[in-house]
Amino acid sequence: MKTLDERLTLLAEVVVRVGLNLQPRQELVLTAPIEAVPLVRKVAEAAYRRGASLVLPLLSDDALTLMRYQMADLEALKKAPAWLYEGLARAYREGAARLGIRGGDPRLLEGVPPEKIAVAQEAQAEAYRPALEAISQFVTNWTLVPFAHPAWARRLFPELPEEEAVNRLWEALFQVTRVDQEDPVAAWEAHNRRLGELVRYLNERRFHALHFRGPGTDLTVGLAEGHVWQGGAAQAQNGVVCTPNLPTEEVFTAPHRARVEGYVTSSKPLAYGGQVVEEIFARFEGGVAVEVRAKNGEAFLKALEADEGARRLGEVALVPASSPVAKTGLLFLETLLDENAASHLAFGQSYAENVPGSPEEQVQRGGNQSKIHIDWMIGSPDTDVDGLYEDGTRVALMRRGEWVI
Amino acid sequence: MKTLDERLTLLAEVVVRVGLNLQPRQELVLTAPIEAVPLVRKVAEAAYRRGASLVLPLLSDDALTLMRYQMADLEALKKAPAWLYEGLARAYREGAARLGIRGGDPRLLEGVPPEKIAVAQEAQAEAYRPALEAISQFVTNWTLVPFAHPAWARRLFPELPEEEAVNRLWEALFQVTRVDQEDPVAAWEAHNRRLGELVRYLNERRFHALHFRGPGTDLTVGLAEGHVWQGGAAQAQNGVVCTPNLPTEEVFTAPHRARVEGYVTSSKPLAYGGQVVEEIFARFEGGVAVEVRAKNGEAFLKALEADEGARRLGEVALVPASSPVAKTGLLFLETLLDENAASHLAFGQSYAENVPGSPEEQVQRGGNQSKIHIDWMIGSPDTDVDGLYEDGTRVALMRRGEWVI
Repeated sequence: MKTLDERLTLLAEVVVRVGLNLQPRQELVLTAPIEAVPLVRKVAEAAYRRGASLVLPLLSDDALTLMRYQMADLEALKKAPAWLYEGLARAYREGAARLGIRGGDPRLLEGVPPEKIAVAQEAQAEAYRPALEAISQFVTNWTLVPFAHPAWARRLFPELPEEEAVNRLWEALFQVTRVDQEDPVAAWEAHNRRLGELVRYLNERRFHALHFRGPGTDLTVGLAEGHVWQGGAAQAQNGVVCTPNLPTEEVFTAPHRARVEGYVTSSKPLAYGGQVVEEIFARFEGGVAVEVRAKNGEAFLKALEADEGARRLGEVALVPASSPVAKTGLLFLETLLDENAASHLAFGQSYAENVPGSPEEQVQRGGNQSKIHIDWMIGSPDTDVDGLYEDGTRVALMRRGEWVI
Repeated sequence: MKTLDERLTLLAEVVVRVGLNLQPRQELVLTAPIEAVPLVRKVAEAAYRRGASLVLPLLSDDALTLMRYQMADLEALKKAPAWLYEGLARAYREGAARLGIRGGDPRLLEGVPPEKIAVAQEAQAEAYRPALEAISQFVTNWTLVPFAHPAWARRLFPELPEEEAVNRLWEALFQVTRVDQEDPVAAWEAHNRRLGELVRYLNERRFHALHFRGPGTDLTVGLAEGHVWQGGAAQAQNGVVCTPNLPTEEVFTAPHRARVEGYVTSSKPLAYGGQVVEEIFARFEGGVAVEVRAKNGEAFLKALEADEGARRLGEVALVPASSPVAKTGLLFLETLLDENAASHLAFGQSYAENVPGSPEEQVQRGGNQSKIHIDWMIGSPDTDVDGLYEDGTRVALMRRGEWVI
């Protein structure tokens, strides 16, 4: 049995070699909560071992975030640090790799008036747009990785003392990041090959749409013209093959912004804006979610008013109900993990790597533009998915939540 | 006797009200080591109480800094995050206040090869230039404040257990920031008035030069034409009256870049670039330090090669040898403090508030331009300072290190 320290070292290796594939002389900009400093140091060590030029951490403090929501008024909450996000976008475009270390109290903002959350997050989304664009255009190699934040662990295991809760959460995270396997890097290479086979299969078929059928769901998701499926390792515009998101269990592509019809119900709660949004229901006409309902969904619903593209889909992703994340049996209340336990959709901005061409050509082909990108889970062990050709013939892709191809 | 927590609250009040004079709706960008998070939170609370729109912390980790110096090669060390510093300059110009929380191991880089430090700090200085310009042009209200970093406390009190060392350092810091006084804010207002009287006296006299005489020192520092003395509270270009540096005990102005003659010896060691530089000796001709020597001075001497203005003076400051900082009897190895225990000079960039006019006019008047600004202490209880008029007559300003005006 390896110690926590040894496994953190392995996780950092997986992050730097598989997730980022960091290059010699490359700068690494990472965002992380202050509680993640032990992992940040491990990652920096692995990065410098690979020849990184500079590891620049941008550390956040949930206590300050919460304090601001509690003490600042609506007008003050409209402020967001555009100068920082434009700087980040520039850093990515000039070659810096990006790592996001994720974790925190999913219910941090639970007592905060929803209008405060909505105002602040709208300003935040607007200011963050240049950075989001750089990431969605895949200008540089990047990845996200979770860490066992104590406040998160306490939410997931309220019955355990904090230290035990953190250890339990780490166990789950090492499992889903394949750090508990004999050779984690080799395990990721094998997994990336399997995702690559699924991607090749789907790209060869050139489906016109997908059809989801399950509890509360009967949804046809048209796919963008010339859409490209992606999954696992992929090549960024800077030429580096990286694995965005650790873990990643999905294959995903771009819906057609004007061809989504039917209704769909979320299969898992979604942690969004410091709230836990439940029972999301959306009905689509001509690509637009003309009706959306959700429990605790104030911030989520407000975000869908951000711009014209916010109520259209920017991503559709297929994940087997038996993925390693799902196998943990945990609802993590962290999208990075929960979206890898179930097929999902995202409202908002589509990814450049899913639709060929310039931003204008992407829109013509049905790609979507928005300053938001919010994933939410719709897949379950009762969900069937078909691929539809333009002539209406169909191919079974998933049955009862599992791949049948 | 107040608890540490209560005194941290008071220190945060002094920082926000006296140091920054933070305005309602103003953004605050602060830099701090991660160990300072408890003070960061206190400052944020005080800032939001004053109506701040956003408190954005940029937290650094000495462990990462040291790791980079140890693991990255010379080529990699040439990288500096220009995107971040240009963003900071933009934030200040767009109205954000600036707070620097200072503290750390003054000997952090002691084992690192000097050429590594020199290369990295040159790249850093070049990248940081836009931010330094914004600060030296005094575009926004700003201040610096120390905190008792454990590694710093261990260096100052190596004979004490860490917790006691930290407490001892806090005692000294509360003393010099006047937090130990009955009403710290009132004490600062009184002190700012006294500094204001000295400033008025010196500005009325319009000296042509200052003359320093002491052990190893016989130096005439010509003053820029139309030079303005500053000290204590001052008005930034955004109209806000703030107190840059907590503590501050100095009155200071701009030397004439071409009129410094004689020799000078440092009176205290200087912590620079993670090294402790001792016995600095400089001989000036026509404003240029034509000869500079120092013990452990590799990074310091290298910095003086940064550009044409780096070997000329950008600041001359008078501080009584009995200042509260000097009274602690401690050598802090932190310029923010040590420069407030002794009269000092700075190589490099002069401050816009010390020379009227546009940047071009400032240079014509003898102001200095450089990407560096490095203070070093020359005053002692044996130092005399005279003010010289253009006709050669002189007025005693300090005798045996104390004001005589």
